[in-house]
This record gives sequence, structure tokens and C-alpha cells, in this order.
Amino acid sequence: MNTGMSSRLDALRERLGGIAFGGDYNPEQWDRAVWDEDVALMREAGVNLVTVGVFAWASLEPSPGRFTFEWLDEVMDLLHANGISVDLATPTAAPPVWLSHGHPEVLPVMEDGEVFGFGNRMHYDPTSPRYREHAARITTALAERYSHHPALAMWHIGNEYGPVAYTPSAAAAFRAWLRRRYGDLDALNAAWYTTFWSQRYTAWEQVNPPEEPRSWSNPARRLDFHRFASDALLECFVMERDIVRAHRDDLPVVTNFMRFHRGADLWRWAPHVDAAALDIYPDPGQPDAHVAAALNFDLMRSLRGEPWLLMEQAAGAVSQWRVNHAKRPGLMRLGSYQAVAHGADSVLFFQWRAGRGGHERFHSAMLPHSGTRARTWREVAALGAELPRIAAVAGTGPRAEVAVLFDWNAWWGLEVTHGLPRNDFDYPATVTAHYRPLLEAHHAVDLVSFGSELGRYRVVVVPNAYLVDDRCAAALEDFAAAGGTVLCSFFSGVVDEANQVRQPAYPGAFGRLIGAWIDEYLPAGSSFGVRFAGGRTVRADWWQERIHPTTASVVASYVDGDLAGWPAVIADGRVTYIGTRLEPEALRDVILGAVAAAGVQPVVAGAPSHVEATRRGRFLFLLNHSPAEAVTVPADGTDLLTGRILEGAVTLEPLGVAVIEVP
Amino acid sequence: MNTGMSSRLDALRERLGGIAFGGDYNPEQWDRAVWDEDVALMREAGVNLVTVGVFAWASLEPSPGRFTFEWLDEVMDLLHANGISVDLATPTAAPPVWLSHGHPEVLPVMEDGEVFGFGNRMHYDPTSPRYREHAARITTALAERYSHHPALAMWHIGNEYGPVAYTPSAAAAFRAWLRRRYGDLDALNAAWYTTFWSQRYTAWEQVNPPEEPRSWSNPARRLDFHRFASDALLECFVMERDIVRAHRDDLPVVTNFMRFHRGADLWRWAPHVDAAALDIYPDPGQPDAHVAAALNFDLMRSLRGEPWLLMEQAAGAVSQWRVNHAKRPGLMRLGSYQAVAHGADSVLFFQWRAGRGGHERFHSAMLPHSGTRARTWREVAALGAELPRIAAVAGTGPRAEVAVLFDWNAWWGLEVTHGLPRNDFDYPATVTAHYRPLLEAHHAVDLVSFGSELGRYRVVVVPNAYLVDDRCAAALEDFAAAGGTVLCSFFSGVVDEANQVRQPAYPGAFGRLIGAWIDEYLPAGSSFGVRFAGGRTVRADWWQERIHPTTASVVASYVDGDLAGWPAVIADGRVTYIGTRLEPEALRDVILGAVAAAGVQPVVAGAPSHVEATRRGRFLFLLNHSPAEAVTVPADGTDLLTGRILEGAVTLEPLGVAVIEVP
Amino acid sequence: MNTGMSSRLDALRERLGGIAFGGDYNPEQWDRAVWDEDVALMREAGVNLVTVGVFAWASLEPSPGRFTFEWLDEVMDLLHANGISVDLATPTAAPPVWLSHGHPEVLPVMEDGEVFGFGNRMHYDPTSPRYREHAARITTALAERYSHHPALAMWHIGNEYGPVAYTPSAAAAFRAWLRRRYGDLDALNAAWYTTFWSQRYTAWEQVNPPEEPRSWSNPARRLDFHRFASDALLECFVMERDIVRAHRDDLPVVTNFMRFHRGADLWRWAPHVDAAALDIYPDPGQPDAHVAAALNFDLMRSLRGEPWLLMEQAAGAVSQWRVNHAKRPGLMRLGSYQAVAHGADSVLFFQWRAGRGGHERFHSAMLPHSGTRARTWREVAALGAELPRIAAVAGTGPRAEVAVLFDWNAWWGLEVTHGLPRNDFDYPATVTAHYRPLLEAHHAVDLVSFGSELGRYRVVVVPNAYLVDDRCAAALEDFAAAGGTVLCSFFSGVVDEANQVRQPAYPGAFGRLIGAWIDEYLPAGSSFGVRFAGGRTVRADWWQERIHPTTASVVASYVDGDLAGWPAVIADGRVTYIGTRLEPEALRDVILGAVAAAGVQPVVAGAPSHVEATRRGRFLFLLNHSPAEAVTVPADGTDLLTGRILEGAVTLEPLGVAVIEVP
Repeated sequence: MNTGMSSRLDALRERLGGIAFGGDYNPEQWDRAVWDEDVALMREAGVNLVTVGVFAWASLEPSPGRFTFEWLDEVMDLLHANGISVDLATPTAAPPVWLSHGHPEVLPVMEDGEVFGFGNRMHYDPTSPRYREHAARITTALAERYSHHPALAMWHIGNEYGPVAYTPSAAAAFRAWLRRRYGDLDALNAAWYTTFWSQRYTAWEQVNPPEEPRSWSNPARRLDFHRFASDALLECFVMERDIVRAHRDDLPVVTNFMRFHRGADLWRWAPHVDAAALDIYPDPGQPDAHVAAALNFDLMRSLRGEPWLLMEQAAGAVSQWRVNHAKRPGLMRLGSYQAVAHGADSVLFFQWRAGRGGHERFHSAMLPHSGTRARTWREVAALGAELPRIAAVAGTGPRAEVAVLFDWNAWWGLEVTHGLPRNDFDYPATVTAHYRPLLEAHHAVDLVSFGSELGRYRVVVVPNAYLVDDRCAAALEDFAAAGGTVLCSFFSGVVDEANQVRQPAYPGAFGRLIGAWIDEYLPAGSSFGVRFAGGRTVRADWWQERIHPTTASVVASYVDGDLAGWPAVIADGRVTYIGTRLEPEALRDVILGAVAAAGVQPVVAGAPSHVEATRRGRFLFLLNHSPAEAVTVPADGTDLLTGRILEGAVTLEPLGVAVIEVP
Repeated sequence: MNTGMSSRLDALRERLGGIAFGGDYNPEQWDRAVWDEDVALMREAGVNLVTVGVFAWASLEPSPGRFTFEWLDEVMDLLHANGISVDLATPTAAPPVWLSHGHPEVLPVMEDGEVFGFGNRMHYDPTSPRYREHAARITTALAERYSHHPALAMWHIGNEYGPVAYTPSAAAAFRAWLRRRYGDLDALNAAWYTTFWSQRYTAWEQVNPPEEPRSWSNPARRLDFHRFASDALLECFVMERDIVRAHRDDLPVVTNFMRFHRGADLWRWAPHVDAAALDIYPDPGQPDAHVAAALNFDLMRSLRGEPWLLMEQAAGAVSQWRVNHAKRPGLMRLGSYQAVAHGADSVLFFQWRAGRGGHERFHSAMLPHSGTRARTWREVAALGAELPRIAAVAGTGPRAEVAVLFDWNAWWGLEVTHGLPRNDFDYPATVTAHYRPLLEAHHAVDLVSFGSELGRYRVVVVPNAYLVDDRCAAALEDFAAAGGTVLCSFFSGVVDEANQVRQPAYPGAFGRLIGAWIDEYLPAGSSFGVRFAGGRTVRADWWQERIHPTTASVVASYVDGDLAGWPAVIADGRVTYIGTRLEPEALRDVILGAVAAAGVQPVVAGAPSHVEATRRGRFLFLLNHSPAEAVTVPADGTDLLTGRILEGAVTLEPLGVAVIEVP
Repeated sequence: MNTGMSSRLDALRERLGGIAFGGDYNPEQWDRAVWDEDVALMREAGVNLVTVGVFAWASLEPSPGRFTFEWLDEVMDLLHANGISVDLATPTAAPPVWLSHGHPEVLPVMEDGEVFGFGNRMHYDPTSPRYREHAARITTALAERYSHHPALAMWHIGNEYGPVAYTPSAAAAFRAWLRRRYGDLDALNAAWYTTFWSQRYTAWEQVNPPEEPRSWSNPARRLDFHRFASDALLECFVMERDIVRAHRDDLPVVTNFMRFHRGADLWRWAPHVDAAALDIYPDPGQPDAHVAAALNFDLMRSLRGEPWLLMEQAAGAVSQWRVNHAKRPGLMRLGSYQAVAHGADSVLFFQWRAGRGGHERFHSAMLPHSGTRARTWREVAALGAELPRIAAVAGTGPRAEVAVLFDWNAWWGLEVTHGLPRNDFDYPATVTAHYRPLLEAHHAVDLVSFGSELGRYRVVVVPNAYLVDDRCAAALEDFAAAGGTVLCSFFSGVVDEANQVRQPAYPGAFGRLIGAWIDEYLPAGSSFGVRFAGGRTVRADWWQERIHPTTASVVASYVDGDLAGWPAVIADGRVTYIGTRLEPEALRDVILGAVAAAGVQPVVAGAPSHVEATRRGRFLFLLNHSPAEAVTVPADGTDLLTGRILEGAVTLEPLGVAVIEVP
């Protein structure tokens, strides 16, 4: 955990005196009379921070350059008068119709050539100079007017940066980005391997975004376009951030990241924000949605090595899926504590009051359509009353000895190019499959990137890292050479940053690391048995490799199928390589065995796998994800939520939580 | 039943002397020599009415303004000479290639931006002034030439009005329609809730059709566009109707409606036609296709409260599906009588003679490819010989005491907007599920709209009416207050005409009616038990609600699942509210229990559910939908088809029919 | 087998002295130093022919008109110096970016209106004059420079001709093609049955390609567009062929055809090539992929009635599917011999050396990423060493007495038009289903077209030939009249070349042939029993017909279902008609029964169905497709691969092969 935390986020924490609680507030949707009820109920619920203005551009600048800040002045004053701090948003994620109607070139063109028009939101091309000019103007006007308003506690730039455009503007920006990356066309042609299929470029203006969603376009070109698209969005963020910083530079400036969002390489974004901030909507219809949630929470913490902000979650149902399940009683509270348990210093919702119209009219809110008589309201208010009991948690962090590699370049390599032995890889799912046993065995886990410092860890897990850069390869070799434990799963190290097969093949980057060479990658159509040295036989499927150990020894071998007798899992010192997709229990045993051998201790011992356990400093979080069964876990200290002194154990109700200050 | 029936339809009925029998006739596809065979065989089959010219524009106006009516003159004369009346069509559903080639702006642009080009049919933008100008010209020319031809018995305007366009012309027409509806932009912005996602309009020219099929566009905008699109088609119909009326106003003018067609709000169309006329193609591969057919037949009758016209059906297979099943022997006859049983005064087919080419070359016909040696021909000719026996039925109607709400606004509310708790509602299917037990228990049923007069009914069924207008809410309250029985199923009354959640929520419009408020709408992932007061436990699934009865009492409660112990079905006097999707048998029992309690009697007693029974005046129709089993039903009177005097019972063969004149 | 074989192909065979062995060689992807390793390894592997330059346009003409042949000169010289012949390709399948960027009109527009842009390959409109001009220029330059190079052994024109365009240029070319076919618009209108849906054309410029993929466009128009599209590609081939022929006319000129490629009517192409040449990639994940492979091999041989070239196959996995399975040990060898067994005089691969980048970086190669230590390399080199043992096979051919109809017009009729009783026909699958029992019973089979001479056969099988032309109908009648055995399956003979239903219906063309008329075609939703005269009852499904025998007698009848008691299979002399989809074993028995009755003998007796047996002259090929079981087959002669003299039997290992010179 980073000990030198962001001073700007420190200031916010001090201002709020503990965990931030609140949500998006859209007063522009309601009559003035409703505002008074809003703030009264916010106080009743313990709200101390609201995000204002995310979608208010049309209300703030109804025609180009004409600003109507009066209503926002009143909102800011009213909130301040009631002791509620404001996370003020630049409204640039949803340009008003006069901008896109007057300047259609600000609209993105999608991969299939269709214009993404006005009528939804996110209808902007991030590379459009016209869009950026107008975004800068409204941001400047907001900064000028509100930088020193006493309610202002934080800036929220844009919203869920996501648009990708295939416009002439994007093509020009892509070319400029490529020139910076490669310098000249020869380097581009070499990286993109353009001798294949006669694709050599002879002039920069021939280079375009890969518009053809249905065809097999150059895989390096697709990869670079994804890198570029992430950077183009980051430029938009930085532009607005710099504007508000120019007016006042002691406030945190953030934007809300999205769960498993392939479009933004957050390792590149992290240095540019004052805190990682996450929007997350685990599907209540999925019984184990909390596992991927935990991974995303750990990722947020790992991005900057410090506490982060839960910026949006739902009080109940969302409105984005075909079937939108609600959260059963207790689940919203459990999910909120889960975020805090993994390092969040806030519990914020989208949104405060349920809207009457628009696409999200059935997206849940802290204050539902049914008002204060609603079950959800009661749970929200109870949580708001309870959170101050754990105020001391804010600012603390865990210490993880296990790291899991999660890098956008690895993701893009597996998913955005074609022509792999299998083309149904799901990178978030495979990382989650490797992360899950660690979570369920109550280990603290950090996520790491290609460029992360590994020296602080004892174990590094490398799931299906088909594409790795040279830094990553070197770092892992160094880590292993220094006695670190590495668990690497199949089809890793194969290509370089340009998606070119490394030589000598295979596994390219990891040949020395794993102590073997691989003749063939073999997708499997059915399952097969794998026998471990100790005699136990498990099942595996989906993938095999013809592995030739050089310095490694065989840990497990195939007992049937085309590769009967060949190695399935090998180990070279503390480096284990898993050449197939083991059934979950077997993967768990391999991972936990290596973790135990590395001397890593879990946060708690003796808790079942559906109980989550994390530490933040001296605070132990226990969360029971079973909706049906209570569970008793060994623990000592004071349960902050009940105030009880524990005598060796704590009982968690179904969906129950304990936050224990350990002696 | 409307006693003051359309005088124009009366005239047709008198002219034909009973049930109309015939179909679409396309002589332009055949050599002159074939025409003589056609009329000879028409006489042999008992044909008395044919529809001519539906797709003959290119044959009638081969170049702009040059008309070639000679062949049609000859056809009209030939038919008249053989005693066959003509339903003369304006050919405007399929413009000739010279129109769309010379004026590409007449072509519709589809929701995804693609032009729907020449090569199929229906390739016209209903809002195109150029299209309307040419449609008016050919219509005027036809009216001038044939209005007083002795063969002419009816006008058939266009064909299956359906096209929707996303053209500049459509955008302009949409804006004009919105101006008429809302007056000014403030009202539009309020109705469309445009403060959400910064969508406020500041000039009319910014308002466009919702082109974005893949995105979450404003739900009120989508809703209004569907209303507009239906009205735009209606304008086309009215324009042509007024032209032919201007030449002669004593003939019925109709167009052919489509089964469950979401694109045309037939309650708005009904006053503008002289008779409802239906094209219907139940899939012979679906064993219970007759249920939805019956609903559509009842809808046709209800639209104007009078007999209607079966304008198109297939003698056997169609050609529009992936697999086109044929009608087994007897099924065409049964389906024909079913339409008549529900109020049709015609049995018409598409088409007379099977074409040799074109997309529909395998669409069945009265005269199949195999000619008069074909099974289908024999059945068609037998039906033609039989229908005169029930001539007295024409013009009569049933008297229903049960009504089922079927309104296009409710349909659009559930299906064309996004963001509902579930987005897999199928409005026709849910209405059919509520209608089916009534049909199978031999009750006469009318369909009603938001604006219908309810006073004539004892029972009104309201299936999943998520969106209702204020008229409907008031009418149901008045109806219930006057002692009427109401059965309302879940997720009803939620939003107003603009798709805005009604306050207080939920169920908004129906809070007083059902005597309860609802905290949450809860999609369900699995099934659960529901126990009725009497002790019987049934299954339900798909949907639950957290219901708080105020004045209502609990009829049934959940026995397991997240809502165990909560009410599933409640009743407040004669108003029953069903808060979940009951299994079909349970829904049937609730509906039939309420109908019985209201004192409504079925048409017959003691018939199985696969036998349909309807009354038209003194005529009782019995239809056996079983393809395998004969059935005996209690009945007295004269079976018109056999001439037999019944002595207390009639036996129906598999797929058999009886039309009994009751003493 | 054609005894007067192509003299140009003879010359190649003589030059190579046996079976050609090698593959695509792309030296432009590699440094010069690699080339020396390449040729050394080629020699080690026994390579005698490589295809060079298929995708080298950008490397050969880096800017318009500037040629850089120096590297190719060196490659040609180097290969020649090492005794390796060259199949030199025109690189016109993948135009350089300067062409499509400078002249966007050369890019194809796809059926849905989207431009198929640069970034993949095959991005050319075959009708584009600009494309053809540039293709001619590079072809001319190559021909001028290399026609007399001593390494040159064959010309390879383009690559996998496939692009179809919906451009203005294509529209103009389509109209020109239609004018040639029909002469005037009246004939076009008659053929296209344009009176249906008012589609009559009055000027040529109104006629366009059928752009509307989602709509029901005129079926005759779609059919003609497919004919035209095949001819447009053929024009491109012929243009380039004529250029290289103009420089030297004694070398074979070929292009590589694709397996079951619907877009090119190979019967029309065959006279224009010097040898049929096939690219084929049977999916190793499909256990019976060898059956369709055999059919395609027989088709290649039948196209010109002479040996053909296996131009591309994979040494292992491909990269075009979602999951790309590798070939297990032995399978590459087996597949190679299978091609030779069916008449191939070459075993060529795509490609020589596995590329490091580009879409196909994981497409297998003779020299894999893992290099000479790879399993695949060892198998490739072993095959190269083995093939010279069967050099004498080259140029020989089988003699088939059974023919199966496989015509592109029949294919298009079933698949590219809409509105059939069922629209899920799969023509290659249905032909394969009829071919399979013949293959598995070790019969030699030719494929024939509508225009083929049938007199040389004893049996002709006609699978689901919905569309047949008059030639075909007459040829089959003549064949049957001369005592030939015909097996015809359901829905055959229905329409003419213009997709118009033949009169008298049904089965139109084949009424006299089969001795019956058919009242109705009836898609079936479930299965049913069929009893054969002998008493055996089998299952059938999917399709039924109401058959009225006239001169035919009933062979089998339905025992249940709607057609219980009606004929399912009939026979009229030696003509059998199968009116339903029999289960595979029953279809097999009908087909083999007729073949036996016709006196046709299999190639071997007493071999199981998973052993393939073919003859080429005095050489008997035996191939064991079982990956698990060895099998012993009666045989005499010398096994050329082992050199052993057989004594009545040969044992084939799993996936094993024997090539036996029979005394």
C-alpha cells in the first residue's frame, strides 16, 4: 500500500471525516420545491457528498456560450447550507443537441460506419477539435464560477469515458499517434508485418482506423487502434482536469471508471487522476457476482496503491439489461461494505432520486419511486446511519503478498485480434478464474501490470498472458530469479507488443522462465484426465500443449486423449506452468499449494469460501455472501458495527457483515 | 354489437346475397387465354368476389402518366359477364420502378439508415410528397374510369399499410405532428423528460426520428414516433379513400389490416374505413394457432362493432417463413368458418391462381400449381358450394359481456421503449394468454381500447397494461364503482401516456382501483409456489411484486422464494389484481371464477376446450379444433351445413364444423 | 477419364518427374539470410515446386508503375539453383494500398451497402475497369520479366476468386451481362416474372444488383446476379491468363479454386484453366471431414476429366475459424494421399514457413514456428521423402460408372432465392449425403453437371435438384430410356432456369422420368415411419410429398403421420424417386441396391466403410480413416510405400495408407 497517499484525497477524507456517503444528484430534473425535500431526506439518510451536474450541459448552457448557472448556484448554496459537500461534474459526456445538430462532425462514427447520433448519451468523438473546444468552454465556465464555492469538495470530469470514433478526425489523430509511436513508416510497416497480404503503407494518409468489423484486418493495426482510442479519451480527461486545476489545485479531480472496461487502459490513466473511482453494477441475478466485483475493487486499489472511491453503485435494480433483477434485502449493504473492505473510502450511488422518465426511469435510486415508504429507502438510511461507526477505516489499506497480472495489452492481444488457435478467450473471465481461489481462501491480492514493481510480492499469478512486452518478461524472470513464486497458465508469452510471434517459439518470452519449449498449441474439443505426481487425477478441457520440458520437471501428465503421457503441468523451481484448463478445484489446489509453499498466510483461517475476509490496517472485514446461512468465524477484537467485544468468534447473519478492530 | 351498421357494407352484402367468397386475382400475370379458364373455374368454385389490381401499378401506368387500362377493362367486363363482383384495388403499395428510379426520395430509409430499395414491395416512404402525388394520380385515374363499372362492388386502398421511414421527409412530418400534439417545445421537453441525459431541445429542427436502433434513445420519443408512423400511414389511406369517394360515395372503401401489427393503431384507423378487413395466416405448424386467430377476429369485429371482412387467408402454405407448413385436409375449411363464427362476412384468399415466379411462387392458392386435380382445389370448390347454406348469417353479430383491453399505446409502452425491469414482454402473447381461457370456456369476448365505452360489459380484463392514459384509468374506476368486475394483471397502470412513472408510485393509475400500493417490481429468475385462500397451491414465475394492500384483501400468497408470505393475488370487491405470472391453469381459474361470479354465461355448456363456440344472432357456430378426435356437443336446432334437425346434440368430426340455427 | 490430357500439365509432370510437393513461399516476409535456410530445408524436405508471389503486389510495385523485381529475381535464381520449380503467381488478389486509397472505386461494396475496405485482402471489385487496368499492368510486367526464367514451371493467376461487388461498375456490368443473355427487356421481364409485385422494368438503367439482403427480392434476379458474379470473376482470370499466354503458351495456367464455393460455377470455369487446382482445409475437429473432402476431390477430377492439383492444404491448424483444431499425427499424411487417391498430381501446402505476424500467424506451415524440432516438420519431411515412391501414379486416373449431379444452378436455385416450402436446404450437405454411401462402399464416383455427357455411366444420382434446365431434363430422360439407372430425391425438377414453376406441376421436368405427379410438397415437423415392400420399416423426416404414381410402382409407403398409406419411394423401371428424407442407413440401402442392380462393382470388396479405396490406373489406394484401429484389407500386388509384395492382404495402421501396384 502506498504510504504517501494523494494529498488531495487526504483533504477530502478530512473534510468528510470518514467514509463518503451519497450519490448522483440531478436537481435539474425536478421542481424547486422538491429540492427542499431532497436535502431534508439527504440529512435524514446521512448523506455527506453528492455528485452534481453529470448530465446538465443543456441546463447549464442552453445555447452556445449562454450560461444559466443560477439554478446551480442555488443548488450549491442549498447543499452547503445543509452540510453536504459537492463532487461537481463537468457535463461533457452528454453534449446538448445544439452542439451535435449544429456541428455533426462531433458525433462519433461507429466501427460499422453508422453515425452514433443524438438521442442517447456519449455521442461525441473524443478526437473532435470542435467537441474539445466546447467541452473546454463549459469546463472553464464551471471552474471560474465554482472553484471556490464552499460546497465544492471534488471535481468529477466527464462520465464513464468510452466513446470510440471512426471519423476523419479520429483517422488523423490515429495517424499522429502512430507517428509519435513509430517515427516513420518503415517502423510501422515492420511492427504491423505489412508484407503479409500486401499491406505495406507508402504514405501516412493511407493509414486509417480498422473500420471493418467483419473482416480479418491486420492484428497489429487493431491492437494499436485500441491503444490509441484509450489515449484519445485520456487526452479529453487531462484537458478538462488541467482547466479546473488551473483555477484551484488542491481539490481531487477524478472520473468514474467502469468495471472490466476494455476501452481504457487504466494503468495509463491512473497517474493522471487523484483517485481511482469506480462505477460497478454487479448483477443481482448472478449468485457469484461478488467475485468479479472483488477483483475490480482490488484493481482500483492497485492502480494507485491507495484507497479509492466507489463512485456509482445501484441501490437495487439497474435498467441496462434485458432482465434487471433487484437486490434482495441486505445485498446493497453487503456490497457497499465489500467495496470498503477492499479499500474504498466512499459508498456512492447512482442516483439519489429515481427519475420519472428517460431510459433509466427504472434504475433504482436511494430514494425510490415509492418514496420513504420503500424498503430500499429504509436500507439506504440505515446504512447511512451505520457508516460513521467505521470512520477510522478511511485512509487505511491492506498489504498483499500475492499479485495477479491484469494488463490491458494482454487483454487486447487475446480478444481484439483474430486468428488465434481459439478465438473465444474471455480475458476478464480467465483472470477471475485465477483470482477466485485466492479470494475464497482469504488472501489479500493486488493486481499488477506489465510495468509493475514485483519485488514486494511473494507470488505472481500470470493468467493466459498471450501477449507480454519485454519489460514484463524481464520482470518475471528477475522475480523468479530472486526466489519469487510464479504461476503461469497456458498460451502465455507467445507474442510481443506488436502481436508478432516471438522467436524462438514457443512460449517465446517465457521459455527460460518455465524451463520448457512448446511445440504446438492444441485447442481441445472434449475433456481429458490429468494425473498429478501424487497420484490424484483431475479433469481438464479446452486447451492442450505439446510441452517439452528442458529444465522443468513434470508435475502432472495427461492420462488419455491425443496427448496421453505428455506433461500437462510442469514446474521449474518456484515457477509452475499450467498447460491446460484445469477444472476449478484443481486449479485452486495448484494455486493455493504454491501460495502456501511460498509462505503466504491468509487473512483469516477457518472461514468458509463464501465468507470474504480482508484487512485494512487494524480493521478486519468479514462478509457472508450466503443469502441463506449464518456462519461463525474465529475473530477477536471489537465489532465496530455492533460495538460488541468479540470473544474468539463472530457470527455473521446471511448477507451479514462484521468490521472488527483487531487488538 | 353495433346495430347501425355501415350502410356501405350493407350494400355489398345485399349485392352478394350472403358470404363473400373469392380472393386476390392477378390476371396481369397470365396470358389472355388463361382468363377464360379462370372465370370458368371461379364459377365452378362459387366465387362471387375477387380483388383485382393490388400489385398492378406497373401494368396500369407503364410510364409516368401513361395509362394502359385496356386489359383491366377487359378483365372487369369478363368478371361482370360471369356474375363476379370486383373489389378494385389502388395499386399504391408497390410503386413501379420508374417512380423509385426517377425519384429515389420516395424510397424509405430504415431504422438503421439503409435505403429500402426497389426489388421487393412496400418500397415507399408514406410521408413523401412525391409518392403521395403519384399515388393520388393513379387513384384518380382508376376512380375516373371504374367508379361506375357494374362489376365494381368495393374499393381496396393500398395493401397492408406498413412502411416506416427515417427520411428527411419523415423527419419534417414527425416535427409537424409533434407541433400539433404539443404546441411548443416546452411541452415537448416536459413530455419527453429531456432534462435526463441533457436532451433538451431548443429548436424544432433539432428534433428527428429516433434512428438509433442499437442505442437507448429517449423512450417518449420512440413512443411518439410510433404514434406518428401509424398516423402517417393513415393519412395515405385517407387521401386515396377521399379520392374514390369523391367519384362515388356509396361503395365500401377498405384496406387490409394485418394480424397483430404493431405499426398501425387500428383503434385510430377504424372510424376511417367502411369495414375492418383482415389478412391472417395462422401457421399450420403451430397446433394452437387458432387461439390468436380468434383474438384477431374478435378484434376486427370490436374495432367498429360490426361484421368485418376476412380479406386474405391461405388455402394452404405460405412462403414467408423459413419452413412453410401446409394446411392438412379440413383445416382451411375450419379456419374459414372460424372467421365467420367471429363475425366475418367474407371468406377471401390470397390468391386465386398460384403464380409461376416471384417470391411467392410457392404461396398456396385456390387454384394450385397442380390445377384442378389438386386436393386443395377440391376443398376450395367444396367450401364455395357450401357457404351459400349460411347466407343468412351475414350481417348478424354476437353480444359479449366480457371485454379484454388491447390498446396499441399499451403495446408500444411495453415493447418499443427500453429500460423496463424486464425487456422481454410480448404484449400480443400476454393478451392472448388472458384471452385464451375465455375462448376455451366458450365466452363471447370483445376487445376494447383506452377510449372504449365499458358500460355494456360485466367483466373487463386488463393484461399487463404498463402504460395507460388518464381516460382508461378513469373509465376503469367508474366501471368498477358501478359494480363491474375487473381483472388486472401485474405491472399495470405504471406510466402515463408520455411513459413517465405516475405518482404516487406504484401502480400509479390503478392505486385506488386495486386497493394497494406496490413497493417494487421484481423480475424472477425461477418459479415459486402461490397458495390460494382455499388452500390450493399453484406455480408461478417470471415476475413478482412487493404488494402492500390498503383496502384490498389477500387472495393468494407466495409460499417460498424471496417474497414468501407476501401477497401474490389480491382483491378489492370485484377488482382482482394478479401480481405474478400464474401458470396457465391457475390464471384460467382466476379469470373464469371472476367471470362466473359476475354472472356471465358461456355460449354453450358441456363442450371441451378444443371446441370453439360462438353465436351470431340466432346462429350457433361449433368448431372442433382437434385433428384427431370427433366430439359430441349438446345442441338443438338445424345444422345448416347438413340440413339436419338436431335432437339435443351434434357430433363434430375432427376439424369439423356445425352452424346451427337455434330455435 | 479424359485420355487426351492437357499437354501443358503433361509438361509440368514430366519436369517434376512425379508428384509435385511444396507450397506457398513468401520470401518477402523474411530477411535475405532466411532464404538460404529456406532452400536448404526445402531440399531436405524434398520440395520440388513452390508458389511465389501470391500476395506480393506491394513488394513488386511499391508505387504505381514502379517495379522492384530485383528481390524476386534473386528468389527465382536461388530456387532454380536448388532445383526447385516455381509456380509464379500474379499478385492481383491483394491490391496495394496505393491503389485502393488513390482509387476508392476499385473497392467492392457489399450486399449491405458497406464498402469492403483495405486492411484484409480480396478488396477489389472484379468489374472495376481501374482494377483490371492495374491488374493487367502488373501481370504484363511479370510476364515480360519471368516468362522465360528457367525456374518457371506454371502460372498461378490471382487467388481464390471470390469478391462480389454491388457497385455502380458492377451494376453496369450486370446490365451488360443481362443484355447479352436476354437481348431485350421483354425477355428479361418474362424471365424474371416481373408482373408479380409490379416489378416490370421499362429501361435498362432501372436494373440493378439485388442489394437488399434482408428483403424478399425477385428470385430470378438474385439467381442471375449469382451467374453474373461468377462470370465477372472468370473474366478477370481470363484477362490475366491471356496476358501470360501471349508471352509464352506452353506453361500451365491455373488458379486455386475453393472447396464448395458457391460463388464460382466451376463447370463454366473448367475449360478456361489448364488444370483444376483446389485449396482445401478439412476441419480436423470434424471426424468425417474426409467425406466432403473426397467429394471435392472427385469434383476437381470431374471438371476436366483428368488429374488435378492439390494447390493448398494445411500442415496442421488453420486460422480462419473460431476454434482451429490441429491435425493429429498422421492426419496430414493421410489427407495428402487421399487427394492423390482421387486424382491429384500434387501435394502442396499453404504455406512453407509460418509467418510471425498478420492474421494468419497461427496458420500452420510446413516449417512451423517451432522450426525443425517440431513434430509437423518431421511429418512433412517424411512425406516429402516418401512421395517419390509413387511417382508413377502421376497422370493416371480412375474410371467411374456412377455419377452424382452437382450443378451450381441447382445450388443457387435451392439456396439463394427465398420462398421455398423450406428455406433451410443445404445443397452441399444434401449432395454429400447422397455421395457418402457410394464412397463408403468403395465405388468410384464422378460429379456431373446439367450439361455433362451421361452415356459413359451406368448410374446417375440426382440429389434435390429443385432447379434443372431443359438440357438436364432431356439428358436424364435419354439416359433412362437407354437403360441407365437413375436415383432422384425429393423436390427435384420443379422450376426452370428462371426459377419459374414448370408446367404441368409437379415435378415439372421429371414427371415422365419418375412416372408420377405430385400434388403437394410438405415440410415435416417430426419424423415418421416408412415401410419398404419387403416389410422393413425405417425412419424419415423433414419432407414429404403427396405422390400420385402414374406409371411408377410403390417401393415404400408411410406408415403413420398425415400421409399414412401414401407412397414415399417409387420406381419406374430403373428410375427410383425418393420423396422424403430417409434416415442415412435407409438412403444408403436404396442407393447401393440400385447400384448393385445396375451391375456396378466396387473398387474393393470386404473393406469396412472407414477405409477408402480408389483406383488410378493400375494403382490401388487404401486409406484407413480410423484414428484408433488398424484394419486388414484383401489386396494383392506391391505396396509402393513399403516396397512389400502383398500376399492377399495388407494391414493399414490407424490413419494408415497403402498404394498398391496391382499386377
